Amino acid sequence: MPRYAMKVEYQGAPFAGWQRQKDQPSVQGAIEAALARLEPRDHTIAAAGRTDTGVHGLGQVAHCDMTKDWDPFRLSEALNYHLKPAPVAIVACVRVDDDWHARFSAIERQYLFRILIRRAPATHDRGQVWQLGHDLDVDAMQEGANHLIGKHDFTTFRSSICQAASPLKTLDELSVERVQGFSGPEVRFHVRARSFLHNQVRSFVGTLERVGAGAWAPNDVKTALEARDRAACGPVCPGHGLYLARVGYPSDPFA
Amino acid sequence: MPRYAMKVEYQGAPFAGWQRQKDQPSVQGAIEAALARLEPRDHTIAAAGRTDTGVHGLGQVAHCDMTKDWDPFRLSEALNYHLKPAPVAIVACVRVDDDWHARFSAIERQYLFRILIRRAPATHDRGQVWQLGHDLDVDAMQEGANHLIGKHDFTTFRSSICQAASPLKTLDELSVERVQGFSGPEVRFHVRARSFLHNQVRSFVGTLERVGAGAWAPNDVKTALEARDRAACGPVCPGHGLYLARVGYPSDPFA
Repeated sequence: MPRYAMKVEYQGAPFAGWQRQKDQPSVQGAIEAALARLEPRDHTIAAAGRTDTGVHGLGQVAHCDMTKDWDPFRLSEALNYHLKPAPVAIVACVRVDDDWHARFSAIERQYLFRILIRRAPATHDRGQVWQLGHDLDVDAMQEGANHLIGKHDFTTFRSSICQAASPLKTLDELSVERVQGFSGPEVRFHVRARSFLHNQVRSFVGTLERVGAGAWAPNDVKTALEARDRAACGPVCPGHGLYLARVGYPSDPFA
Repeated sequence: MPRYAMKVEYQGAPFAGWQRQKDQPSVQGAIEAALARLEPRDHTIAAAGRTDTGVHGLGQVAHCDMTKDWDPFRLSEALNYHLKPAPVAIVACVRVDDDWHARFSAIERQYLFRILIRRAPATHDRGQVWQLGHDLDVDAMQEGANHLIGKHDFTTFRSSICQAASPLKTLDELSVERVQGFSGPEVRFHVRARSFLHNQVRSFVGTLERVGAGAWAPNDVKTALEARDRAACGPVCPGHGLYLARVGYPSDPFA
């Protein structure tokens, strides 16, 4: 059966996360239903990151196995046709080797987190940013973030239901920048690692927001990390500002 | 009665335009309903531009008359509270003189039009851009646009139901630029004049798209303008890429 890699974009709001569920809409379920319109049978696709409820996809990667030998572009067009009106789109599709795996072949995940700084409720970016009414000190946040970069025991920044075998992870990037977004000033986080613990990015952002607001000193992040204690974490921020931005492979299948 | 100027942002999709209508949701109706929650009676507000169905507000300006002497910030907060969950927000509010008028005091309107260039359906910007699957030649579009700048009889670019007394208008700006948007490459139009004819911006953009696609030469825009004939216009583009971006007054009330 020919295997196809798909780059997937989606809004998180209408879905109870990526993973297929019995009674709730999921991104995986939406794509599998579209596949069943093309080849009527059960489909099971795999993705690089199983995003939580409300979390968005920008560069999520999944793979599917087809019976027919599809032209990749026509496959993506047919899927996009059947995915409508759900806010899910296949933005790229390529044929890959049979042993290529969207999740197990991945060597890097990059997340984007957007905070919109303004008092009035967002209209155009509603549900796509975490909105705060107070400004944030980006330099202090970056100073706090720098304590997290590298290989650490991230027990503090891991949800209690995390199923990873070890809390040891290597964080390759955690950069904080201020940009002018469409709806106002934003603070954006770029977070990159081979893999992440459950709720790790949202735990980072929630903690660093406390630093940006002046409630925590940058060095308190180091103290929290070294405590290796979930109770030392700042508040976990909401998921609707989070995007799975990019997945890295030894060789980019979409290049 | 104290008068207040409000800067208003909204998504166009859920509304049959700005103007209050009997049986359909409108932005004006939503704000007047919120005002009635604060001071229970009939309210009638006026706006600088009566945007059509699907057209968005970024910097729409309206004014309202209140009985009570409201603190402007608290008035905007109370309105935003009652406007939820409609995608309408009062982003600024100030007290103005009793003879200040959102529409009649305005001396300039600026519109933004966004075209998203990509094949796969937009997810994050759905309904907020006009999406095209083909690329556009921005230089050719600007060359065509330059023929429209200045004082002209714009009969060609005016809808048949336009109620303006004269087709003579002075176009102060029509610039075309390519930017990297959140969902991909965009072509953005910035259009500025004291006032506009009905469907004028959408007629400009629809015509210039034909130039960008290579179907029209830039000079064909001049020919169309000089024809002073609605039939000479290119196709009118959809409204959901259009934003009322800014309204100018002799003295900016929000400064």
